[in-house]
Amino acid sequence: MNIILLDDANFITDRMAVIEDQAVIRHLQSVLKAQTGDVLKLGKLGDRIGQGKVIELSHRHAILSDITLTASPPNKLNLTVILALPRPKVLRRLIMDMTAMGVDHIVLINSYRTDKSYWSSPLLSRLDEFMLEGLQQGVDTMPPKITLAKRFKPFVQDDLPSLIGDGSAIVAHPYAKDRFGQLIQQRLPQVLVVGAEGGFIPYEIELLSSVGVQAASLGDRILRTEAAVNALLGRWLP
Amino acid sequence: MNIILLDDANFITDRMAVIEDQAVIRHLQSVLKAQTGDVLKLGKLGDRIGQGKVIELSHRHAILSDITLTASPPNKLNLTVILALPRPKVLRRLIMDMTAMGVDHIVLINSYRTDKSYWSSPLLSRLDEFMLEGLQQGVDTMPPKITLAKRFKPFVQDDLPSLIGDGSAIVAHPYAKDRFGQLIQQRLPQVLVVGAEGGFIPYEIELLSSVGVQAASLGDRILRTEAAVNALLGRWLP
Repeated sequence: MNIILLDDANFITDRMAVIEDQAVIRHLQSVLKAQTGDVLKLGKLGDRIGQGKVIELSHRHAILSDITLTASPPNKLNLTVILALPRPKVLRRLIMDMTAMGVDHIVLINSYRTDKSYWSSPLLSRLDEFMLEGLQQGVDTMPPKITLAKRFKPFVQDDLPSLIGDGSAIVAHPYAKDRFGQLIQQRLPQVLVVGAEGGFIPYEIELLSSVGVQAASLGDRILRTEAAVNALLGRWLP
Repeated sequence: MNIILLDDANFITDRMAVIEDQAVIRHLQSVLKAQTGDVLKLGKLGDRIGQGKVIELSHRHAILSDITLTASPPNKLNLTVILALPRPKVLRRLIMDMTAMGVDHIVLINSYRTDKSYWSSPLLSRLDEFMLEGLQQGVDTMPPKITLAKRFKPFVQDDLPSLIGDGSAIVAHPYAKDRFGQLIQQRLPQVLVVGAEGGFIPYEIELLSSVGVQAASLGDRILRTEAAVNALLGRWLP
């Protein structure tokens, strides 16, 4: 946690807040080793970033006073990432990292090589929690939009074109002839599509192509989905 | 595993090999669902990439024949990554990903914020195993060099200058004024230094600077070490 995130429910006045979340309390005590009088970096969800002073801290709650929220959160990237639903094990880290890096809209989509069982993983009901971890990691207060699209074809044909708009779109595909680094030299795409382990099948690549999504690879090396997403997103960072 | 890696011990003739490694056997049976007669992509460690035919497959061993090794492994990046020893939990994935992306030389270094206990983690004796997983992921046969540097100052002063040579070096530092994306527009550095969670302390940044290592950040957002390394390495990919 590089910032403590509060929401409306935490505030008892404009300048005073109470934290009862045990994970946050433990972080204050064990990692930050906060003491009464310490000033902490904090933000209000959907609002601004600032600071507040610890006036009480026990294993049950923390009370913060003199809260000021003055700074704007960092800009979001002008980017939608459409990701074939990954293995539950890597889903948490991927949501965290995409959020921390400032992706504006995350779409989890079905694909031929997505294991059907992933859609019934209990982790899918915890996306908000992973997204909050990402905001706390990336020092941000603005949640990205997260969309679930369980049907590939209707999503690509009906929803994707408006997400692309005037921008461009690239699908990362290990077997594509074009290279990602080359394609983005003109401009960064507004939509990035990434497959599951094993990538998309030719039918899916063709359907994406029919709405203007260009396929590009990162070279001859094949990367884990998680590594590939972060390597791709690195191109958006300053 | 996007390639089956064999070494000298597997070969019984130039064109025939036996696999007894249980993890590989399980992969052949459960993931690839290999059958007698199937032709598999394989490589010889430190040598070339090619294929071979399955002529016998049981739960105890696999026998491959008609092995030909004709293709060169992908080029390594002209890059040394010097990484403050991370938490054991992320060490495996970081070694895998850096290997899969083709980093030529990996140095694990001590730093002020590296927890001392990390140096006695049993995972440190399994680096070769993680590196092999990375080669199998990245479709490569050439192991990167891996160096452990338990003393920060002597390494930086005595060993780092010759690793930089005629190239340049950048340390990723969340609080640096310069931006990584800007600094690399002229040329990619030959050496990349990445800190532990919490980054390097000012003394370490100064010592690195004294041998010519420039500090640069990826913007105002703070990333997990693992995400940061992959986001940085993305700049080297085509």
